[in-house]
Amino acid sequence: MALASKMEKVEAVDALTAGVVAHKLKPQALLVSREAKPEDTLVQAGPVTVGGGSFTVIAGPCSVENPEQMLCTARWAQRYGAAILRGGAYKPRTSPYSFQGLGKEGLELLAQARRLTGLPVVTEVMDSSDIELVAEYADVIQVGARNVQNFSLLRKLGQIRKPIFMKRGLMTTIKEFLSAAEYILAGGNDQVILCERGIRTFETATRNTLDLSAVCVLKEMTHLPVVVDPSHAVGNRRYVKPLARASLAVGADGIMVEMHCTPEKALCDGDQSLTPKEFKAMMEELNAMTALRQGWLAC
Amino acid sequence: MALASKMEKVEAVDALTAGVVAHKLKPQALLVSREAKPEDTLVQAGPVTVGGGSFTVIAGPCSVENPEQMLCTARWAQRYGAAILRGGAYKPRTSPYSFQGLGKEGLELLAQARRLTGLPVVTEVMDSSDIELVAEYADVIQVGARNVQNFSLLRKLGQIRKPIFMKRGLMTTIKEFLSAAEYILAGGNDQVILCERGIRTFETATRNTLDLSAVCVLKEMTHLPVVVDPSHAVGNRRYVKPLARASLAVGADGIMVEMHCTPEKALCDGDQSLTPKEFKAMMEELNAMTALRQGWLAC
Amino acid sequence: MALASKMEKVEAVDALTAGVVAHKLKPQALLVSREAKPEDTLVQAGPVTVGGGSFTVIAGPCSVENPEQMLCTARWAQRYGAAILRGGAYKPRTSPYSFQGLGKEGLELLAQARRLTGLPVVTEVMDSSDIELVAEYADVIQVGARNVQNFSLLRKLGQIRKPIFMKRGLMTTIKEFLSAAEYILAGGNDQVILCERGIRTFETATRNTLDLSAVCVLKEMTHLPVVVDPSHAVGNRRYVKPLARASLAVGADGIMVEMHCTPEKALCDGDQSLTPKEFKAMMEELNAMTALRQGWLAC
Amino acid sequence: MALASKMEKVEAVDALTAGVVAHKLKPQALLVSREAKPEDTLVQAGPVTVGGGSFTVIAGPCSVENPEQMLCTARWAQRYGAAILRGGAYKPRTSPYSFQGLGKEGLELLAQARRLTGLPVVTEVMDSSDIELVAEYADVIQVGARNVQNFSLLRKLGQIRKPIFMKRGLMTTIKEFLSAAEYILAGGNDQVILCERGIRTFETATRNTLDLSAVCVLKEMTHLPVVVDPSHAVGNRRYVKPLARASLAVGADGIMVEMHCTPEKALCDGDQSLTPKEFKAMMEELNAMTALRQGWLAC
Repeated sequence: MALASKMEKVEAVDALTAGVVAHKLKPQALLVSREAKPEDTLVQAGPVTVGGGSFTVIAGPCSVENPEQMLCTARWAQRYGAAILRGGAYKPRTSPYSFQGLGKEGLELLAQARRLTGLPVVTEVMDSSDIELVAEYADVIQVGARNVQNFSLLRKLGQIRKPIFMKRGLMTTIKEFLSAAEYILAGGNDQVILCERGIRTFETATRNTLDLSAVCVLKEMTHLPVVVDPSHAVGNRRYVKPLARASLAVGADGIMVEMHCTPEKALCDGDQSLTPKEFKAMMEELNAMTALRQGWLAC
Repeated sequence: MALASKMEKVEAVDALTAGVVAHKLKPQALLVSREAKPEDTLVQAGPVTVGGGSFTVIAGPCSVENPEQMLCTARWAQRYGAAILRGGAYKPRTSPYSFQGLGKEGLELLAQARRLTGLPVVTEVMDSSDIELVAEYADVIQVGARNVQNFSLLRKLGQIRKPIFMKRGLMTTIKEFLSAAEYILAGGNDQVILCERGIRTFETATRNTLDLSAVCVLKEMTHLPVVVDPSHAVGNRRYVKPLARASLAVGADGIMVEMHCTPEKALCDGDQSLTPKEFKAMMEELNAMTALRQGWLAC
Repeated sequence: MALASKMEKVEAVDALTAGVVAHKLKPQALLVSREAKPEDTLVQAGPVTVGGGSFTVIAGPCSVENPEQMLCTARWAQRYGAAILRGGAYKPRTSPYSFQGLGKEGLELLAQARRLTGLPVVTEVMDSSDIELVAEYADVIQVGARNVQNFSLLRKLGQIRKPIFMKRGLMTTIKEFLSAAEYILAGGNDQVILCERGIRTFETATRNTLDLSAVCVLKEMTHLPVVVDPSHAVGNRRYVKPLARASLAVGADGIMVEMHCTPEKALCDGDQSLTPKEFKAMMEELNAMTALRQGWLAC
Repeated sequence: MALASKMEKVEAVDALTAGVVAHKLKPQALLVSREAKPEDTLVQAGPVTVGGGSFTVIAGPCSVENPEQMLCTARWAQRYGAAILRGGAYKPRTSPYSFQGLGKEGLELLAQARRLTGLPVVTEVMDSSDIELVAEYADVIQVGARNVQNFSLLRKLGQIRKPIFMKRGLMTTIKEFLSAAEYILAGGNDQVILCERGIRTFETATRNTLDLSAVCVLKEMTHLPVVVDPSHAVGNRRYVKPLARASLAVGADGIMVEMHCTPEKALCDGDQSLTPKEFKAMMEELNAMTALRQGWLAC
């Protein structure tokens, strides 16, 4: 890309943000913007299409712990209507002494869960040197909230041909979030799902503060699908169901929730994981809302 | 109240908050807490009951500007299903040189709008010396976000017999919000409606960040009705409708939205005011959701 | 003031803020701005002049509790070099069941402490109906952090002829802080001292986050003196001394610190109150820095 | 490390944080804690010792741009008393279309600047696959604010034998910051310098909010040296000098500032870069304060 063209793009980043207020976007807009591409992008996660009018539920444990846990959870997720399975094999943990994930063994258990249920799987990559291995197993590759501005990782994810599931960081503005996604699209990979998962604020009654207004802003500014993760946002399973309903109502393209057969034994994030029974109750409420959803899409 | 009893109450404030996580509340809990009173409080705003299963829509202009504006807006609000009218006669403004409200003249226009529509009215009081006057005109008295810790004002509002509509401050924790309401209940007035209206965070794409998780936490901790104000939270009329749907879906007892016959001429907050047509569209979507709402209440 | 003139002032608020970055201020600037008045304002607190090159230390207990406590603390404050005494008679407390201050009795103890030491006193007013009474006793009237946008109170403080000591709120931007001070100057009272006392952020290791950069920005934008309160910012006496040094080093016009003869018995904020011995050690370090301070003023 | 031992460490993370308030630390504390090692750690950056009573000034351009710029800036930095040179060869940029650094060519220019001045150099690594190359050139390796929780990178930096200069993230709590450093120490590398560089808050008058209280808390909790970067915190050269003085006054072990021979031509962060003349003025003020500093160390 010539320098002149690059400079235009940089201006476009500012124009894009200014546009939230002023609605005066420049023609040479970012690849992630609706100006560059007005119609919704459909992301193909194995057999599942994310975006474009459907509401996709992604469920599974925080981390893959062992065969029983992963396969049991996967079976209930499928039975009650999840479209995609989640599970962490590489876990970013605040402390070096916390459980760090099973690594390759975890990836193999995810593949086993996929064979068992027929559902595609999404799992996180933490280091650019692991991309190839994770891409071998996963249908969708997740970028965690703490890596949303790991630009070196993002640039390499632009080079591969797998969909990317990208979480907003705790401190990422909407402008920065879109610029981070632009790294991937600029590399040639337009299969990106954005995920709002709560931002860090002064409030500590919930783990983070779920920013559902961001869904409105993102859906207006970008053609990429936007999914909400209420589990990490609140850190408390009692609040997941109402916030899942709110996510659907606000116009998101789906949710990602944590679910565990025996949350009280989970090695990670047990407090925020739904039991299969709670997951079922949530799905029933979401399904009942689906009929209404058609008229809502013009957020 | 004896000192020993007071000290127990102070401990109860901490216990209440700790309880968000630990669910081990002390018996001698705050008056606002579900421990003190498990069943929902119903707040009687003129002929309208807020809380206890209904979904109340409050609508009207940011500030009362003149007879045409107030009466025109009130008529559309009523026609499309608002249950309560809003309008500011005393306006808290960041700059001393901005429009500060019509004062008593504004209160009289609100009373006229009530006669015209039959709807009760809510309006803000900014100073304890105005309480008597405002109470003469209003069915519900509003405490603005910037006065939520004006303890002197709160104490006096505990002495009157009018319902209070209390906005969460831009940086008020849920604990502080409940403690502020406790000032009113401790004075003998239990007719208090709490209102989440967005908190201040690092994100500037929206005016503030609407904290819908707070609705879940509040509904769990207190018996008081909880209403959401999406207009002030986002500052942009395009996002009000989806966030109104999300407010209903998360389990709130109602919403307050700004509406103006000619938003482009509004003296205050025109950008976030719905037109009557947009208000109608919002009400249709909310009404369609109401049937589903019964099963959701156990947030 | 004519409407045209008012509208110019409103534009000036925006220009003032934009000016932080752009340095292109309009001529018709706010009264608080350096454009309106380039030279430093000197505030006369009884016999003490605040601003204009001096470094003023204000010390005393969080709240006035009883004669022994107030007089003992006042004596040590004076002996070790405080220029102004502080002490709260009306206390804004999060919980209605916490100690709310001695009221008029507290004001009388402050007057007694002034007679004993010769030092002027600063104390908080919480309600506009108390202004007259507080002004009778105090040399300087404090507006607390929670009242910085109590515009009704501010407007009335513009009408009196006592200096105002105004704390920045937990959530107040620098722009809003200056606009709040403008309410007082617009009323005709230019004797205003601004006080940075920590803002609310995500960090909880300290009570709030002391924003010393704000001192630089304020000193550049306004001619009013700027004082720092490290005690409330950190909530921990161990950190008060180093932050007092940093406040002097950054170019503040003074500090306000909490001090108590027996902090372990304090009814309020004991953890952050210095003992007389700690206060002495702090004063020695500050005095040693004073000689260097001359060259620093052009912040 | 056996699992039982690991579990003790995890408990120690919580104890460490609780200890900020309660001062009751467990014996089996984290490696970064003063409980594990009461005396200050000295970090050896080439010929320069950081920590233990000295005040180290690190200076240089945001990014290495070309030979003239780097060598000119390095010469002035040395002449006026900088102890370590900085300069970015790999630049984390919000937009993929911004200047991303010269890469290896930049490392070579840094090595040339070191030969010219005799000063050691610090430069950032963004990806674990670049560690080996960067370590070949740099005396100290920097972890940027956006990588402070890139745990995969941190773990690898624990394996090398170069000092690490680690910036606090925009929304990293002090607890998380120490846990991130623990990743490096747990790997066997105890040569870590911590750097406070401003956190993200609601205030936008400065780029970020410099948290000087964090220096006090960190110096109390950990034996690692703590340095302050005022340039990135405020984003405005006019505020760098007063905040550098405040950093010294609060008890930091040094500062890192941006400096550029011709800031108006800088490809990155020109607004916050000092000119050589401004750098000289800052150094003179800091040098004058040094004599006082001895008594201050017991922060």
